[in-house]
Amino acid sequence: MKLLVIGGGAAGMSAASKAKREKPEMEVTVLESGNFVSYAQCGIPYYLSGIVEKHENLVHYPIKEFVENRHIGVMTTKSVEKVNFREKKIYLKEGQEISYDILVIATGASPRKNRFYGMKNVFFIRSLDGAIEIRKHLHGNNIAIVGDGILGMEMAAELAIHGKNVSMYSKHSSLFPMVDSRITGEMVDYFRKQVNVNLNSMVEDIQENDGTLRLKDSNGSVHVHDHVIFATGITPNTRFLEGSGLKLDETGLIVVDDEMKTSIENVYAAGDCATSFNRITGVHEWHPLAQVANKMGRVAGSNIAGKIMHYKGALGTTLVKLFDYEIGFTGLTAEKAVKNGFNPVEILVQGFSRAKYYPGGTLIRLLMVYDHDTGRILGAQICSKDGGAWRLNTLETAIYSGMDMETLFYNDLGYTPPFSQVWDPIITGASLSMRD
Amino acid sequence: MKLLVIGGGAAGMSAASKAKREKPEMEVTVLESGNFVSYAQCGIPYYLSGIVEKHENLVHYPIKEFVENRHIGVMTTKSVEKVNFREKKIYLKEGQEISYDILVIATGASPRKNRFYGMKNVFFIRSLDGAIEIRKHLHGNNIAIVGDGILGMEMAAELAIHGKNVSMYSKHSSLFPMVDSRITGEMVDYFRKQVNVNLNSMVEDIQENDGTLRLKDSNGSVHVHDHVIFATGITPNTRFLEGSGLKLDETGLIVVDDEMKTSIENVYAAGDCATSFNRITGVHEWHPLAQVANKMGRVAGSNIAGKIMHYKGALGTTLVKLFDYEIGFTGLTAEKAVKNGFNPVEILVQGFSRAKYYPGGTLIRLLMVYDHDTGRILGAQICSKDGGAWRLNTLETAIYSGMDMETLFYNDLGYTPPFSQVWDPIITGASLSMRD
Repeated sequence: MKLLVIGGGAAGMSAASKAKREKPEMEVTVLESGNFVSYAQCGIPYYLSGIVEKHENLVHYPIKEFVENRHIGVMTTKSVEKVNFREKKIYLKEGQEISYDILVIATGASPRKNRFYGMKNVFFIRSLDGAIEIRKHLHGNNIAIVGDGILGMEMAAELAIHGKNVSMYSKHSSLFPMVDSRITGEMVDYFRKQVNVNLNSMVEDIQENDGTLRLKDSNGSVHVHDHVIFATGITPNTRFLEGSGLKLDETGLIVVDDEMKTSIENVYAAGDCATSFNRITGVHEWHPLAQVANKMGRVAGSNIAGKIMHYKGALGTTLVKLFDYEIGFTGLTAEKAVKNGFNPVEILVQGFSRAKYYPGGTLIRLLMVYDHDTGRILGAQICSKDGGAWRLNTLETAIYSGMDMETLFYNDLGYTPPFSQVWDPIITGASLSMRD
Repeated sequence: MKLLVIGGGAAGMSAASKAKREKPEMEVTVLESGNFVSYAQCGIPYYLSGIVEKHENLVHYPIKEFVENRHIGVMTTKSVEKVNFREKKIYLKEGQEISYDILVIATGASPRKNRFYGMKNVFFIRSLDGAIEIRKHLHGNNIAIVGDGILGMEMAAELAIHGKNVSMYSKHSSLFPMVDSRITGEMVDYFRKQVNVNLNSMVEDIQENDGTLRLKDSNGSVHVHDHVIFATGITPNTRFLEGSGLKLDETGLIVVDDEMKTSIENVYAAGDCATSFNRITGVHEWHPLAQVANKMGRVAGSNIAGKIMHYKGALGTTLVKLFDYEIGFTGLTAEKAVKNGFNPVEILVQGFSRAKYYPGGTLIRLLMVYDHDTGRILGAQICSKDGGAWRLNTLETAIYSGMDMETLFYNDLGYTPPFSQVWDPIITGASLSMRD
């Protein structure tokens, strides 16, 4: 039995490892288009800023580990040109063809490219190979980041912390609109002191001029930078599947069920190239996130080996550290809740991260969304310089379990002055929901 | 309608405030035996060590706030001698009698005293009044703490951090047996470098000698200290109820239902003097913890005002910071799970608090207990120098919700390198449970 995995990222290596461990007699081969497998994509901003000294530190396991200890074949720098599902064969760009019995597609996603792709000192980031290239050339001090998504914000903050003069271009009218401005206000003020933020601003043109880049924005201003890094979203790597007969959704994602099975027998997909679904609504969604990709890969590998696992969906939980701020969001916003037939109520809470008399505490700003009719918690967003990330994870766990606000009020969170107030903002939020 | 509350601690003030807010026409009076109401008992170790400079910082609200803004009568230094439930009257030690329509008993708990009580430089800690007395007299450098419970361990660590020479006497054969030694090993080693720990050691005798105390332990050794602080457990303040007809359990706790009603009509009890119950087993337990007391008080006050609330039980969740270690436990140990008819499995996990390549991470040691037959998570214990406390609260939330290990595996915790690994120890633990 030959298992072929296309893509050596989180989902692919997770699927390959799980299948091989559960069914050692299976012949497992992974094809990766880059030079590395099993590396930490989320660590790239820290590699670019220099916090992470060597790119090797971002590699979870060297290829040797997979080949020698896990007995998984790994072929790097191999790009798949097309797949013939009837003949169970894939064709490499290099001309070679490889047959399989079972296929896992875990090709991930790539940065959305634009007409400036290929210009000197203009970068599009996603892979470790790409990051190594960028760091090699990142000599200038004056850096533009285009896009205020997670990756753009992270890179801007990290490069600013490490002494670069960073400018950000956002098409939005307020910075980082993924999180409610009522809780990010303080963070945004701080961010704007460290980074030159241009709002309502698209890149109209970039011209090279004597080793520098002249960036013209949609407001007509011209700015001079040494480098421009685009972080304007990603797109699933599924173009090679067009016309292959495999079911894709309208955004190009491979449609999978909760066993990671695609529309074609013996073909699985997992990770950023495939659909996930929302734990609360059950609706198909895209969750291009490392922890989700790992689990989807695990599910695919386990099912291939005959040990059935059913993926239970995700909440799109996202954490990010920007300067000293811990920011996170999970589940539904009120707007999305309405679209899904809920009757949402928002609760905004401010409280301290520690007992007021204990040093080092900061304000926690928390937004909770629950359904008025059932009390069920639907979503949460947080911003704080102390204890924000894992409070968000605590709320995420409540949401994932289907807890209602009344139960959350009684939820027996531990208390000690260095880590919370007696009435933690989470409990205060729950108690506010019980007022009416 | 006259509501009388005995005890101005967390439960009492919470009950009084909630009842008054919900039913402003009610006449609410609080009797407190000490000089302070609504203060942070859990802050006492930090007040003794000097982190908290003034005792006023530990007072959540001054009495004025209750009297002037909340219109609640507060009488301090009033001790209740006895209650006549038939006549609805309480009798103060000072001779006065006060009648009521509805009574809340929230008298809390006091340190267990022994024959050394009253000796100069020998202290028993629980109240803010007591802590003020101690700090006034804590001139010596050489301090003995007797008892390795939460309070004893906290005081020992805080006083050692602040330059005192601290000795600890524990009757146990290993230090701090509340938490599994497999996860506290590193912490205990560190603790023993900072504090002189005497195990298997009871205090046989204390003699005053020229301003110092000569402590003879049960091994026959004699140690010289400036002060001895006993932290050898607490006992509910319900002695004044003996023979009153109110139902107490065998340990002296007032028996209450989930509305905080006692065995006598119009008499409620809440906080450390009353029974709580275990969220998992439903069995009556004692949870003398600030966050539980606050909620029990809230429930009592709300029900008194006619807005019915049902307490949902606690897990005994406890967090403590000892030096740089964040330690916590919640729910059932394997031993307790067996006693309650479960078929427990223990999972021991070690992992990092942050991505390995991100600076500042430390090892997380985690013990999870789940029921083999249903997969339900029953308990957790954690020890780490980074991110331990709120990981414990995340697991607590899973336990409180009744989550099973399979769902915990899919639980969509947010991930970013500064706050976790892609496979957080929590998820790794859950995945280990799915191996068989």
